[in-house]
Amino acid sequence: MEITLQQTAEFFRENDDFTLICHSNPDGDTLGSGYGLCGVLHIMGKRARIICDDEPSSRFDFLAEAIDPRLTELAKDADETIITIDVADVELIGSLKDRYPDIDLCIDHHVSNKNYAKRLLIDNTSASCAMVVWELIKELISEKQLKETPKARAIAAAIYTGISTDTGCFRYSNTSAKCHHTAAELMAYSFNVTKINYLMFEMKTRERISLEIEAFNGIEFYWGGKCAVISLTRQMLDGIDPEDASNVSSLPKQIEGVSAGIVFKEKKEDVWKISVRTDENINAQTLCSALGGGGHIRAAGCTLKGTLESVKKAVLSEIEKQIDNGVKEL
Amino acid sequence: MEITLQQTAEFFRENDDFTLICHSNPDGDTLGSGYGLCGVLHIMGKRARIICDDEPSSRFDFLAEAIDPRLTELAKDADETIITIDVADVELIGSLKDRYPDIDLCIDHHVSNKNYAKRLLIDNTSASCAMVVWELIKELISEKQLKETPKARAIAAAIYTGISTDTGCFRYSNTSAKCHHTAAELMAYSFNVTKINYLMFEMKTRERISLEIEAFNGIEFYWGGKCAVISLTRQMLDGIDPEDASNVSSLPKQIEGVSAGIVFKEKKEDVWKISVRTDENINAQTLCSALGGGGHIRAAGCTLKGTLESVKKAVLSEIEKQIDNGVKEL
Repeated sequence: MEITLQQTAEFFRENDDFTLICHSNPDGDTLGSGYGLCGVLHIMGKRARIICDDEPSSRFDFLAEAIDPRLTELAKDADETIITIDVADVELIGSLKDRYPDIDLCIDHHVSNKNYAKRLLIDNTSASCAMVVWELIKELISEKQLKETPKARAIAAAIYTGISTDTGCFRYSNTSAKCHHTAAELMAYSFNVTKINYLMFEMKTRERISLEIEAFNGIEFYWGGKCAVISLTRQMLDGIDPEDASNVSSLPKQIEGVSAGIVFKEKKEDVWKISVRTDENINAQTLCSALGGGGHIRAAGCTLKGTLESVKKAVLSEIEKQIDNGVKEL
Repeated sequence: MEITLQQTAEFFRENDDFTLICHSNPDGDTLGSGYGLCGVLHIMGKRARIICDDEPSSRFDFLAEAIDPRLTELAKDADETIITIDVADVELIGSLKDRYPDIDLCIDHHVSNKNYAKRLLIDNTSASCAMVVWELIKELISEKQLKETPKARAIAAAIYTGISTDTGCFRYSNTSAKCHHTAAELMAYSFNVTKINYLMFEMKTRERISLEIEAFNGIEFYWGGKCAVISLTRQMLDGIDPEDASNVSSLPKQIEGVSAGIVFKEKKEDVWKISVRTDENINAQTLCSALGGGGHIRAAGCTLKGTLESVKKAVLSEIEKQIDNGVKEL
């Protein structure tokens, strides 16, 4: 059942012990939203903790550092309230689903939300879950009350992290005027914007740089440079952090003149995960749907079985159809 | 003489033929500010053109495309009004200084402005010149008047480009709440934010990628990875666009654990231009000042003469002083 912001605030006031669940492969939005809300619940005198099926990347360590561990211990025999944060489908909490079959509240922004929770606070016009949480925070405590606590800066930084990561630092097409308005509000709390965005977008491990070099060294171009292809074999991906590997997906599309950037990653023998990033000349969704996958018009994916040569041929022939058709504006 | 926003608007209303001068090595702020203002002057029925001593990078082509060339022809025997945009020092307009020795108005945001123009509209608290120009535009024409013209989108996009480039897409420490407020206002004109930021921050030439690979292949680490050094010889830089070469300066600092990222570029035999980027553990300004250069605490530079080995030794010994002193927070 969908509930309003006011009803959600009331629900938080009525309960005392909260377990906030972030989605697996946690990103800046689920973690920033979770830690921001957790911090506010602590200010309200509640006990609240964050759990996640996967260990977050160390680049998110600063979010947890501001949390007082004493307040994350739930009361003995507490009637634990279970809340999912930025989780469109309960499957996305992984094995935690078995431990927590009943979700009391889901706070989310995905259009694809499966409506699996008893209560649902959703704004699917919002670019990030963090913006939904920020509106909720403003219902829960006054600006004055927030500003008086030493935690205010960390809470604002957490919410900002969610907005920044889900919009690619205000660059993706989901970036709205509201994203900028909220960022402006948050900046009154003077956290270190530069440091956060360095951690989120600039910092690269040495392993990632090595992988990028290897990837670029083997890059292939088709149709006079309109299509760029990178292939990563299991050998190249061996020992590579999945986060580092996933970031490679955006590389070929960055090259000047490339309308379709494709990355082939070997998952196991003869099984390839394919990421497609396109500009306005190619529809990635149409392309990947034709191959049994899916996604968005500018970013989509599919999984194909076969040798690298055969799966590459399959993908390139789908691209050729669109290049032949001279699709210009999608 | 410093004049107010209102006086500046009045000055524009009183004159008819404007030459707007952008600084040499033009960036998104000087060009975005210039083209945004130029577009508004055309709406007001004025004639206005943009000039610059250097050819802008093709990534800025979209700015000029919205300009009506008929309106950039100044009237015959016009009393040409000369305006510099985002130009702190008249030396920065290069050879145009000889053609235009008298500057009627300078619109700028640099603290270091040399006050060389007859009139000066400056806000040195502003992160970008484009934000100063946007305030001026709001004095010159009403929101209604702007929204009614087909050029509104291009003008908003130009101003946005200035803010985005001068703040590193809202990541640098100069990013203020006002930057986000202005961005939010501009987004009402629904230009293509994704496309602009792709052009400004993501798109890389093949030559740049090759240079990055070569740079990373020769990277050296010192003090257990706290310092990373890239050296670019004249041979490596031969035929490379200066814009591509300059972007390499930020690479070594991106590596996890690196407090000082140094790039040595060979300008001519035994002359090295050195760029230093640091985190809060090292003061780049102190370091480069000690070597006869200067800059900011996180980004500075100097030029040294000698062999690569000798200049590297000089820079590393300055870094060692700070690492030895255990400087933590600057």
